[in-house]
Amino acid sequence: MDHIRAGWFSEISPLWPGQSFSMEVKEVLYKDKSEYQDILIFESKNNGTVLVLDGIIQCSQKDEFSYQEMISFLPLCAHPNPQKVLIVGGGDGGVAREVQKHPLVKEIIQVEIDEKVVSASKKHLPFMAKGFDSPKVTLNICDGFEYMRNHKNEFDVIITDSSDPIGPAVNLFTENYYRLLKEALKPGGIISSQAGTVWTDLPMVKQTVANCKKHFQTVKYANSSVPSYPDGQIGYLVASLDESVDLRKPSFVFSERQIDELELKYYNDEIHAAAFVLPNFVRKELA
Amino acid sequence: MDHIRAGWFSEISPLWPGQSFSMEVKEVLYKDKSEYQDILIFESKNNGTVLVLDGIIQCSQKDEFSYQEMISFLPLCAHPNPQKVLIVGGGDGGVAREVQKHPLVKEIIQVEIDEKVVSASKKHLPFMAKGFDSPKVTLNICDGFEYMRNHKNEFDVIITDSSDPIGPAVNLFTENYYRLLKEALKPGGIISSQAGTVWTDLPMVKQTVANCKKHFQTVKYANSSVPSYPDGQIGYLVASLDESVDLRKPSFVFSERQIDELELKYYNDEIHAAAFVLPNFVRKELA
Repeated sequence: MDHIRAGWFSEISPLWPGQSFSMEVKEVLYKDKSEYQDILIFESKNNGTVLVLDGIIQCSQKDEFSYQEMISFLPLCAHPNPQKVLIVGGGDGGVAREVQKHPLVKEIIQVEIDEKVVSASKKHLPFMAKGFDSPKVTLNICDGFEYMRNHKNEFDVIITDSSDPIGPAVNLFTENYYRLLKEALKPGGIISSQAGTVWTDLPMVKQTVANCKKHFQTVKYANSSVPSYPDGQIGYLVASLDESVDLRKPSFVFSERQIDELELKYYNDEIHAAAFVLPNFVRKELA
Repeated sequence: MDHIRAGWFSEISPLWPGQSFSMEVKEVLYKDKSEYQDILIFESKNNGTVLVLDGIIQCSQKDEFSYQEMISFLPLCAHPNPQKVLIVGGGDGGVAREVQKHPLVKEIIQVEIDEKVVSASKKHLPFMAKGFDSPKVTLNICDGFEYMRNHKNEFDVIITDSSDPIGPAVNLFTENYYRLLKEALKPGGIISSQAGTVWTDLPMVKQTVANCKKHFQTVKYANSSVPSYPDGQIGYLVASLDESVDLRKPSFVFSERQIDELELKYYNDEIHAAAFVLPNFVRKELA
């Protein structure tokens, strides 16, 4: 699984056959195999520090804020009062870093299965792992499925920051997972999940949306630009138990001052709405 | 300049150091050196036919429609009556293919400097070069600068479909070029130009916007998702000589029926508006 050759890391996966994104490596900072996956962290030449799990780029320092902010604030700002939040996955701490910025959020529970991702991130990705330092955050090293089976009707928002639907994360895209999410939410609860890209696997996105629709009243697909991810973008499944909510309209809007003070580099209320606008070839399939 | 190794084409350029996008090659269809540049056309394994100039991907069959539709319809639909259009560059025919779809467009003049790009595209990229078959289109093989010097006050819309600001296209990003565009336009004229990506070269985008602002009343930067381009997206500089026009609001809206009949796979009026919404880190720099 070592995809570094002649000083370049190349991302090769059956999820996006016939294409590959590569980054020049300055220095390998960490390399280990956990109970769940291969973990690689390297300093790239032009994109800062990069986290790779099972050969797939999870984040690069240059553009990770787009993903972390969007997967967090799309559901949080669509919810009228997101006091208690569950994060499933997200062992690098980036999502926790963003969620704790939201003024209405009081308590964040995070469940991550792989302790080695957390400890390696604390050491090598401190700009993300600082999310764990917030007094709002309680981190549990355990299985997200198990945790939710024992915590019903408890959360306003649940964010699933998973890797791609291959290997350990494959169950996080099934109908059964959306049932669990529904049961762990309070009435009116909202979720967001990493949902792949429409360029490489529109049928998979379509299937995920269909699975989610079996349990949620309103289901939307949004996306944002993340150059280090396949196709240079990533999708978010955002869904609500309340059919009257318009997920595209934030009920909480960050002021310009808050955007500066909280260091929001990507998200604002206009980006929120625009993220849900889809090209014709996608709109047709997800209608 | 041959970037094919072990069956993969890799795009390597000083414009985006330390990163590279690669595609698996099924068959090289064409390879030649014109007076202006190296031309390569290959059949990829998963992205259809791909055109490469001087080692840089110009389009892949899988996603080219995003670029061609957006660079065409952003200016055309913002203009109240775009009867006469000039296309500078665009030797593959893709922009002509889109521009001729607009019901109000009566006449399209295209100036492309490299005849070999046109002839190779006619043979190997017929799905794009079919744009030249429209009775609305007159193609001239000549230098765009020269052409505009001799055609003042003539066009409603001018679209510059250039390669990146390195090599033969470098002059198409200078202040002098925007002066020429202004003079070739009729009053109220609108332009769009390929304008790079904010992820890799925000200072360059900022400079291009500043150059354009010296000659145009309203200048905006928009973008769309194109996985085969660096960072998975591409920017468009859209500018008007009329300060009262809101470039973000299309004055012509394609109906759902037109979208189907004209085979618009990407562009619609909501995408038009959303393309101008920028993340905070860009908004701040381009304000």
